[in-house]
Amino acid sequence: MRIIIDAMGGDNAPSEIVKGAIRARAEQKVDLTLVGDRRQIYSAAAHEDLSLSGIDIIHTETVVLPDDNPISVLKNKSDASMCIGLKMLLPDNEYGVVGDAFLSAGSTGALHACSTLIVHKLPGVRRSGIATILPFSHPLFLMDAGANPKITEEYLVQWAIMGSIYMKKIFGIENPRVGLLNNGTEEGKGTDILVAAHRLLRASNLNFVGNIESREIPFNPCDVLVCDGFTGNIALKLIEGMGRFMLDTMRNIYSANARSGISFLLIKREFEKFKKNFDASEHGGAPLLGLSRPVIKAHGNSDAKAIASAIRQAVSCVQTGITDAISEGLADYAREVSKS
Amino acid sequence: MRIIIDAMGGDNAPSEIVKGAIRARAEQKVDLTLVGDRRQIYSAAAHEDLSLSGIDIIHTETVVLPDDNPISVLKNKSDASMCIGLKMLLPDNEYGVVGDAFLSAGSTGALHACSTLIVHKLPGVRRSGIATILPFSHPLFLMDAGANPKITEEYLVQWAIMGSIYMKKIFGIENPRVGLLNNGTEEGKGTDILVAAHRLLRASNLNFVGNIESREIPFNPCDVLVCDGFTGNIALKLIEGMGRFMLDTMRNIYSANARSGISFLLIKREFEKFKKNFDASEHGGAPLLGLSRPVIKAHGNSDAKAIASAIRQAVSCVQTGITDAISEGLADYAREVSKS
Repeated sequence: MRIIIDAMGGDNAPSEIVKGAIRARAEQKVDLTLVGDRRQIYSAAAHEDLSLSGIDIIHTETVVLPDDNPISVLKNKSDASMCIGLKMLLPDNEYGVVGDAFLSAGSTGALHACSTLIVHKLPGVRRSGIATILPFSHPLFLMDAGANPKITEEYLVQWAIMGSIYMKKIFGIENPRVGLLNNGTEEGKGTDILVAAHRLLRASNLNFVGNIESREIPFNPCDVLVCDGFTGNIALKLIEGMGRFMLDTMRNIYSANARSGISFLLIKREFEKFKKNFDASEHGGAPLLGLSRPVIKAHGNSDAKAIASAIRQAVSCVQTGITDAISEGLADYAREVSKS
Repeated sequence: MRIIIDAMGGDNAPSEIVKGAIRARAEQKVDLTLVGDRRQIYSAAAHEDLSLSGIDIIHTETVVLPDDNPISVLKNKSDASMCIGLKMLLPDNEYGVVGDAFLSAGSTGALHACSTLIVHKLPGVRRSGIATILPFSHPLFLMDAGANPKITEEYLVQWAIMGSIYMKKIFGIENPRVGLLNNGTEEGKGTDILVAAHRLLRASNLNFVGNIESREIPFNPCDVLVCDGFTGNIALKLIEGMGRFMLDTMRNIYSANARSGISFLLIKREFEKFKKNFDASEHGGAPLLGLSRPVIKAHGNSDAKAIASAIRQAVSCVQTGITDAISEGLADYAREVSKS
């Protein structure tokens, strides 16, 4: 198995990406390829006095920047580390090595656009999208997290199928509960698309538990939650912001006076544990689903630990055959529908 | 000045509504009218041994229920406490008393629908909506909080104008900062409607600070934040849920062992103060804006304190002439646009 890694994507590239790859390589005997500027990669390794043995490098000096228009990246920067990395997932590619999964901490929009153009969607998939695992005590799969602001009811059903398979394969959850993010629990709530999606999900073989209001998200209401990419993006970033706000507030309370300082010392370990739960690096990256190969988006500010965790996740996706399973799940659903 | 109150709306009606009205009446010499079942209102007062002097009652036995279809409430239950209360805002109404503002803790959907049908929108208003003040250290006005899932760019601009006037008049904020809730800070982000709204807001005389990502909401990014009612509802309920989740988590940490119990005793006062900040009752109700009279929606689970606070808010709306100010603000904007 070989995981291809965009060495140049994200706020801390290439040094944290290189360190993360080295850490992952030390943990499990997976073959890794870093795509990016060879000199920068070497000097990152040299700076930390780390060995790159077992890690290949494909050299390129072109990088996708955060401001690049996602739609024209492939046309204008086809030799960027992100584009080369994705092309390396294809058989008979020009780089002489075929990867099983690709990982980047670069621009989400560009990664989604280039993935769709290079790796292609699985047959029958309406739209590929980005899923994320929300940082609560129970993992909660949210899709779409930002790639598709406009949707149809069919996208939502397909994402629910992908999510159910992902949570079963990667998190070992039997019969995952599927919810529809909506502005009320009653069946007729929300836009016409949501009402139609509710009906389709209810009629499917999925373990559909109905509409979920956003206030329930932290309290384990389901295992898979589907919504349009605009709403998903708002929800995801608000959870992030509220987590930061609450921790900031607690920190302010603790630093108010000597008494509260003592209080903090007594609670420090538990507090840090809780903070760690809210640390994105513990939850790996966001999988792009609906594509013919596993592609993982790591958080833009990923450190070495987060990169190593995202590499583990990519390995899991390959080992569990998530792509084939999704392909079969969608085909099963299509057969169900055509029968009824 | 007279405030009309729906005595039968919300989870704790009529007892907490009656107690709240009595408390508000004791605080300020405003005339109050309770609309609802006379016997239930009297027995709520009798149970608490409180005096209803200075508070009128308009008797009705019909109540809007949470499951009633908002659109047919006025047709099927025109004698419900909510409908009668709204009619009492009109001059020459059949109840012999004219109110200056109306308050209900009943169904949001029904209140919005009946308000639009009975009280009518201000001339020139495209859509009335529901605003809410988010529970952070700096008050943040969010509109629409749930009434209008579908929008146009014009609604958003009008709500931004209403919000600016509301925050100036009610919270004394000079030149309120206006933000557009979006999935990215860059100008071209979001749906076509959001891109168009961005352009209109940028061209207006409002103090527009640009797109706001949801992760910034807790950190005082602006004074007025506009969005469609679906997104607003998701954001509002998620803030509520995340607040509850964080407080639950801290409570669990504190009850883990003896050491953490001592830690809690040292921090208890500050912790309670923080919790109180997240207590909806401190922030009064949600104003319905764009109508020809002030209408306030109190939270469904309001207690007496929350009702008293919402009555104070209704009084502020009348005293500051919020309705006329909004009417003028919208007319000014229409003139500006027609000139350019």
